[in-house]
Amino acid sequence: MTPIRSPDDLAPGMSFDLGRFVLPREEVLDFARKYDPQPFHLDEEAAKRSIFGRLVASGLHTFSAAVGHLMRSGLLSQVNLGAGGADLKWPAPLEPDTPVTMRVTVEEVRPSRSKPEMAIVRLRYVVAVEADGTVVLDVLAPHFMTR
Amino acid sequence: MTPIRSPDDLAPGMSFDLGRFVLPREEVLDFARKYDPQPFHLDEEAAKRSIFGRLVASGLHTFSAAVGHLMRSGLLSQVNLGAGGADLKWPAPLEPDTPVTMRVTVEEVRPSRSKPEMAIVRLRYVVAVEADGTVVLDVLAPHFMTR
Repeated sequence: MTPIRSPDDLAPGMSFDLGRFVLPREEVLDFARKYDPQPFHLDEEAAKRSIFGRLVASGLHTFSAAVGHLMRSGLLSQVNLGAGGADLKWPAPLEPDTPVTMRVTVEEVRPSRSKPEMAIVRLRYVVAVEADGTVVLDVLAPHFMTR
Repeated sequence: MTPIRSPDDLAPGMSFDLGRFVLPREEVLDFARKYDPQPFHLDEEAAKRSIFGRLVASGLHTFSAAVGHLMRSGLLSQVNLGAGGADLKWPAPLEPDTPVTMRVTVEEVRPSRSKPEMAIVRLRYVVAVEADGTVVLDVLAPHFMTR
């Protein structure tokens, strides 16, 4: 993917299709054991009795994997300085081994008041199940970028 | 930690001290390689040239480790059904091997309109460096809980 060279090249509405990724079952279990050890992320039988009705990935894992996919795409490699936070929603759970697609959209570009060499770019990341478009992650995050 | 037995026992302002945890350096590097491969999370020399000035943990890792710490405390083990999202801020970065403390506060308790057996409890998690109180993570998350 061609890296963004400067936030000055960005405008609200621009979007980038980052293609597909998947959370393999073993990784789903491993992540849950470390960071979100709840029955519906760890145990098939317990998950059947949960509100999800089947084993689902931790939303933390979906979020982390999405950021990993974004960073590995190279899109932000020349400009990203970090993010100050994120507003995230998990509209639906994600099952292991289910291909998802990811799209990043520019929501806002704002020069930093205190640091003219920086801009704050609000990016939206949407991750959806490839087969039916069900959105499993919707994030709005302010990224600090070098100009 | 004594588990919460029902959201009906909760009221805004109640808080729970979850004690201390730490992100070991090896785990910081491992997490970053998988989910946030950026130079300032992976490489000491590159990190020195970043706006952080030294190697810092991925904010995704801080968030994931905090949730892991919360889940392992057992506080929510009898009531938590899942969370629909989270609004998170990283006011300061966290260095590896730095002890942090975590506190969870009840912000709002609201019975579900559509499902009387459920309540939506907004929890705030604050993670701060033990030595000087610097807040490194501040999360507001709506948890669905069984009554």
